[in-house]
Amino acid sequence: MRTLLNRQEKLPFSEKDQEHFMQLALLEGRKGLGLTSPNPPVGAVIVDNDGTILGRGFHSKAGTAHAEVKAINDAYEKLGPDRIRGANIFVTLEPCSTQGKTPPCCDAIIRSGIRRVFVGAIDPNPAHAGAAVSILNEAGVDVVTGILEDDAEYLIRFFRRRMETGRPYIIAKTAMTLDGRTTLPPERGQWISSLESRDDVQHLRRQCDAIMVGGETVRTDDPMLTLRGKYAEGREQPERIVVTAVKNLPLSAKLFNDAHADRTHVYHGQPLERVLDDLGKRGICSVLMESGGSLFSHAIGRKLIDEVVFYMAPIIGGGSNTVMPINGIMADIEDLNVEMIGPDIRVTGRIVK
Amino acid sequence: MRTLLNRQEKLPFSEKDQEHFMQLALLEGRKGLGLTSPNPPVGAVIVDNDGTILGRGFHSKAGTAHAEVKAINDAYEKLGPDRIRGANIFVTLEPCSTQGKTPPCCDAIIRSGIRRVFVGAIDPNPAHAGAAVSILNEAGVDVVTGILEDDAEYLIRFFRRRMETGRPYIIAKTAMTLDGRTTLPPERGQWISSLESRDDVQHLRRQCDAIMVGGETVRTDDPMLTLRGKYAEGREQPERIVVTAVKNLPLSAKLFNDAHADRTHVYHGQPLERVLDDLGKRGICSVLMESGGSLFSHAIGRKLIDEVVFYMAPIIGGGSNTVMPINGIMADIEDLNVEMIGPDIRVTGRIVK
Repeated sequence: MRTLLNRQEKLPFSEKDQEHFMQLALLEGRKGLGLTSPNPPVGAVIVDNDGTILGRGFHSKAGTAHAEVKAINDAYEKLGPDRIRGANIFVTLEPCSTQGKTPPCCDAIIRSGIRRVFVGAIDPNPAHAGAAVSILNEAGVDVVTGILEDDAEYLIRFFRRRMETGRPYIIAKTAMTLDGRTTLPPERGQWISSLESRDDVQHLRRQCDAIMVGGETVRTDDPMLTLRGKYAEGREQPERIVVTAVKNLPLSAKLFNDAHADRTHVYHGQPLERVLDDLGKRGICSVLMESGGSLFSHAIGRKLIDEVVFYMAPIIGGGSNTVMPINGIMADIEDLNVEMIGPDIRVTGRIVK
Repeated sequence: MRTLLNRQEKLPFSEKDQEHFMQLALLEGRKGLGLTSPNPPVGAVIVDNDGTILGRGFHSKAGTAHAEVKAINDAYEKLGPDRIRGANIFVTLEPCSTQGKTPPCCDAIIRSGIRRVFVGAIDPNPAHAGAAVSILNEAGVDVVTGILEDDAEYLIRFFRRRMETGRPYIIAKTAMTLDGRTTLPPERGQWISSLESRDDVQHLRRQCDAIMVGGETVRTDDPMLTLRGKYAEGREQPERIVVTAVKNLPLSAKLFNDAHADRTHVYHGQPLERVLDDLGKRGICSVLMESGGSLFSHAIGRKLIDEVVFYMAPIIGGGSNTVMPINGIMADIEDLNVEMIGPDIRVTGRIVK
């Protein structure tokens, strides 16, 4: 944690308190997951010196007010403009310092009379990249950075990936048996993973801007790749990306005929890198790859996967369809997270690059 | 829970208390895991009506004193014979009621003046099979059965399997990548799983009477299959069973030449069922199968595996060596237990038969 103070005075909060309030800001920020691209999700909480919460806000759509401004407005509406003078704002990401589609948040903070800004992550956007710290300091606002920085970075990992590489962050999701098989005998029905896991996939989809499959998946499974029920509320359906080497996609496929057919995009015969460059240019920060083995192993072999999510059903499958159909591909996984989702084991982790 | 009382009086312990003391008896019993075959591991705790522990004991070797007698002796040594009159004994398995290599525990309990017996599991041995309940009752000793019965049954699962089928309980253990691969490229070294997992395997081995591998494992890995360090203390090395279809085992293999070569047994060209019948006859209650894919999938296809333990390294492997090399084998797994062992995920479960 890096503390930058103009005035040589004690902070009103212990380190533990600061983390508590940043946790609240992160909770706000997570409400924007999947809604904000090409912007990052951001959350903010305004707190009195005695720890009273005065306002909360999160960024919910590019082009609309940022989290800081929403938290300030929230406090104004409830308590009037005077109450937040001298208060503290906890914000998961460095406040923006330049005019974008909305005026810079630094100005709004300075104008509001807020006295201290507690920051989670520094903005990877080169137009900001820490500039807020000195702008705020010069205006007499104290800044403390790096609070729950890992969590704050995790919240903007999609945004950071696109900012740094021009390409979206890719999560590869697959359902399989404990022994790495992706198909079961026909009498076992269509699904390997449980209802609970499929519900969890809806949750994953909701966080992502686009879903990608290979042509083979369209031909054999004819999936919809949509958000359903509560997961569809308050956001647009994800873009649906089909990557195919050969052209024979069935025109009757649901992806081309349902109510969201305008959100289906086919990339034919192009290197995956070029597809991702194009998606990045179109503002897509995150892709959930729901492909079977061949697109997944192609992508992992080219080091294009950032994160994997495996739903492992408590079954020993056997059979010839494996997650990794191609020999000699290998990747190490870090930051492993293992959780039971209904009867299945969900393993999440980041690919070591 | 089934309560059998001669006297119409209140038990001195609540249900929660009873489970607490049975938990202590189970802790005792587990000390005997891997030491007692062909007998089951059993633990006992003697408790005063006010909850004071008077004695503890566990069965540690066939032919020596049973848990109940050891707990009684423990109390006698510390407190003299009068102190346990009117007390309670918690024992994980129904006390034996017939003369074996040692006199029946029911007699010892009756003679000691113990007034109540709290039992975990009923003995699957047809010579006992609940007989203790009426013997003790007739002698004026109250009996309560079924306390933490699932845990008590789990403790004797090896013993029960052999008692009911004449064959040992089989745990198949394998190390693999997250995508079910059992080999890595040579530059990654000999081991898929971590040091911590290999230590955990020592713990597993210590609980089992024998370790089984296929001939191919002897030819390619030349393993020792021994208990090492603290895991070797206080018990004999496990029997080492090699099951092979073809005869060309290397005579130079460690299994045939180390200090425990007399504990290596080769079964050549016999159906696995017959091998298991023979091991059962020889008093072996549990086998840890540490085979690679082919013996494992052969055994699971014949429904001979009871339990699986998978050590999954955080790696996506690819390659052609899979846990299940044979097509069309499928098994469901229940009572799944998932735990991190160092960097690896350990998945344990029972095969649904």
